[in-house]
Amino acid sequence: MEHEPLLMIPGPVPIPQRVRSAMVQQAINHRGPEFGAAYADIVRVLKPLFGTENEIYVISGSGTAGMEAAVANFGKDKKIVSLVNGKFGERLQKIGERYGSVTALGSEWGTPLDLPGLEAALEEGAEVVTMVHNETSTGIRNPAEQVGALAKKHGALFIMDGVTSIGGDMVEADRWGVDVAIVGSQKCLAAPAGLAAVSVSQRAWDMIAENRPFYLDLAAYRKSGSGTPMETPYTPAVPLFLALREACRIIDEEGVEQRFARHRRMADAVRAAAGAWGIELFPVVDEYHAYSNTATAMKIPAGITDKDLRGTVKKMGIEIAGGQDHLKGRIFRIGTMGGVGTPEILATLAAVQHALRKHGFDAGDGVEAAAGVLG
Amino acid sequence: MEHEPLLMIPGPVPIPQRVRSAMVQQAINHRGPEFGAAYADIVRVLKPLFGTENEIYVISGSGTAGMEAAVANFGKDKKIVSLVNGKFGERLQKIGERYGSVTALGSEWGTPLDLPGLEAALEEGAEVVTMVHNETSTGIRNPAEQVGALAKKHGALFIMDGVTSIGGDMVEADRWGVDVAIVGSQKCLAAPAGLAAVSVSQRAWDMIAENRPFYLDLAAYRKSGSGTPMETPYTPAVPLFLALREACRIIDEEGVEQRFARHRRMADAVRAAAGAWGIELFPVVDEYHAYSNTATAMKIPAGITDKDLRGTVKKMGIEIAGGQDHLKGRIFRIGTMGGVGTPEILATLAAVQHALRKHGFDAGDGVEAAAGVLG
Repeated sequence: MEHEPLLMIPGPVPIPQRVRSAMVQQAINHRGPEFGAAYADIVRVLKPLFGTENEIYVISGSGTAGMEAAVANFGKDKKIVSLVNGKFGERLQKIGERYGSVTALGSEWGTPLDLPGLEAALEEGAEVVTMVHNETSTGIRNPAEQVGALAKKHGALFIMDGVTSIGGDMVEADRWGVDVAIVGSQKCLAAPAGLAAVSVSQRAWDMIAENRPFYLDLAAYRKSGSGTPMETPYTPAVPLFLALREACRIIDEEGVEQRFARHRRMADAVRAAAGAWGIELFPVVDEYHAYSNTATAMKIPAGITDKDLRGTVKKMGIEIAGGQDHLKGRIFRIGTMGGVGTPEILATLAAVQHALRKHGFDAGDGVEAAAGVLG
Repeated sequence: MEHEPLLMIPGPVPIPQRVRSAMVQQAINHRGPEFGAAYADIVRVLKPLFGTENEIYVISGSGTAGMEAAVANFGKDKKIVSLVNGKFGERLQKIGERYGSVTALGSEWGTPLDLPGLEAALEEGAEVVTMVHNETSTGIRNPAEQVGALAKKHGALFIMDGVTSIGGDMVEADRWGVDVAIVGSQKCLAAPAGLAAVSVSQRAWDMIAENRPFYLDLAAYRKSGSGTPMETPYTPAVPLFLALREACRIIDEEGVEQRFARHRRMADAVRAAAGAWGIELFPVVDEYHAYSNTATAMKIPAGITDKDLRGTVKKMGIEIAGGQDHLKGRIFRIGTMGGVGTPEILATLAAVQHALRKHGFDAGDGVEAAAGVLG
């Protein structure tokens, strides 16, 4: 192919050249001031993206490692209520089951969370609530503010997977009452995969488990992170830290509000295209639940196969995502995360529109509708 | 400084330009053939370095994550005997204590392991043995073959930390009876920090724990690793895989035997320099224990401070390591790992020799002695 494929899936996302080039530098000692300064810089930029004044720790591992760190350190042997309406909610439930006693409140994928059930579980003594803020498997954004208020009212700890929202959509961890929030490097931050960042409230520290895992022991990260220079307890993935630091510089240059507005505008454009095409969005939203601003899930129209649709798009050099698990073949998903902008969105929508029409679906002009939003 | 500092510590090590440049490529989908081919290529090259025909799994995390994966999956709720004669042995003991019932057999750092004690513990029913093969904290190489034979004789599982030996010194996991071996990417493999690779024997699979952690669940790695294309269960640190694959290509080009010979020759040269300087090597070796071929630890002569010695060397653009924990100020360490060769060794020894003489120690001509070995 004459061109690198354009990744428009809900992460990993295209990584700006500046960020990739930051990894080329020679290895540095990770117990020295140069590494410490990079780590500190990352934390400084991430705090407003998390909406927190709590300290943030960076783990060399994927978002899943960050989720497990949260659950293992703060949910062990506790009564956990796990809100589930998609693949990543299920993952958080499974992680919870390895450490605590889990009540899973499942809704059909892509439909609203069971908030009355949550209130009942909290009244029955649940001590920890887990939720995925932005569920890329279905394109729904879950109501962190409402869940945080319920958790707080009943004195429960709130662990929020913000892997695909933090850095792209507004998150206000402190105001919402989120005690532990997690982000992954390869989503809205537009850095390479392989790092997770975790913020921890004082309330969470006060109830940290006695028996913790070793590599994911957040108390060890806290100790190493509080010295000068900042360090990690075990050897970090140095090139990924340097890349994430460069990604943070780009975020600094763009500005947090502008970044959120860009993500919202890109998602608005994709939703406008779906409307013009005559294609239904997959999630069922209500006054508390919204369409995700970082991943849009649409139903595949009758008569077209997933393979035809995504295959035709892929031949044009663009990768979009299919459905996962039981949604395979039923939906397709477009990521609007990280460093992408108007050209990538227009190209992607034009390719999808062509594929829809080529395979017999009489799609309206979604490209023009999106251009109207973006222009 | 006009030059990047030359890292001659026992890892991380200088990374060849080819390896660093492999990280610049745009993000790829980690659930596709390009990533799968890179993963498969890494495993193919690692097998002879481990000396195993068992499958190998690559975890996005540091060597410590690999060590914990081994212990958590195969040592949970078991009677573990932990051999300790240095910092990383202590770490393995601590990890063991989070999962099983540990009998720690401690020897003074840098002195031989307690093999009679091991035999006694095995006779009393120990089910798992843990050992660090190459202890960089003290420069000793522990007797994996003897320990493996004892473990096998008593039907115990043998977990070996090969983080700083595999890829640089000969390891014969299968022949020695090592059930689980671990290597880190940033040591003898000369790739960036952030990946651990773990080999697992059939005997180990047969006794895998029922309750395992999530991110480090090796059964999940086994399942994802056995498909086509090869995958990891959770999002991998893609750039680090691409870098490690390039590092493996370099290993292929050099040849395994040649690589081991080069490491041995470099360590021989450093030891020859120590002899000519009139400086004692730190470890106490015997018929089973040897000096490490990847890290040499020497006693700091009386009258010179660690700060003066390493400070003077650092001013010449070279970083060597001091002692860790209670050995701080008593020893210094030179790594001979990965892609370095004669020029780096000669430069390092010349700088150390200058520092020794400058601070009042009447050192002989270690540089010439080393050159005799290397030339």
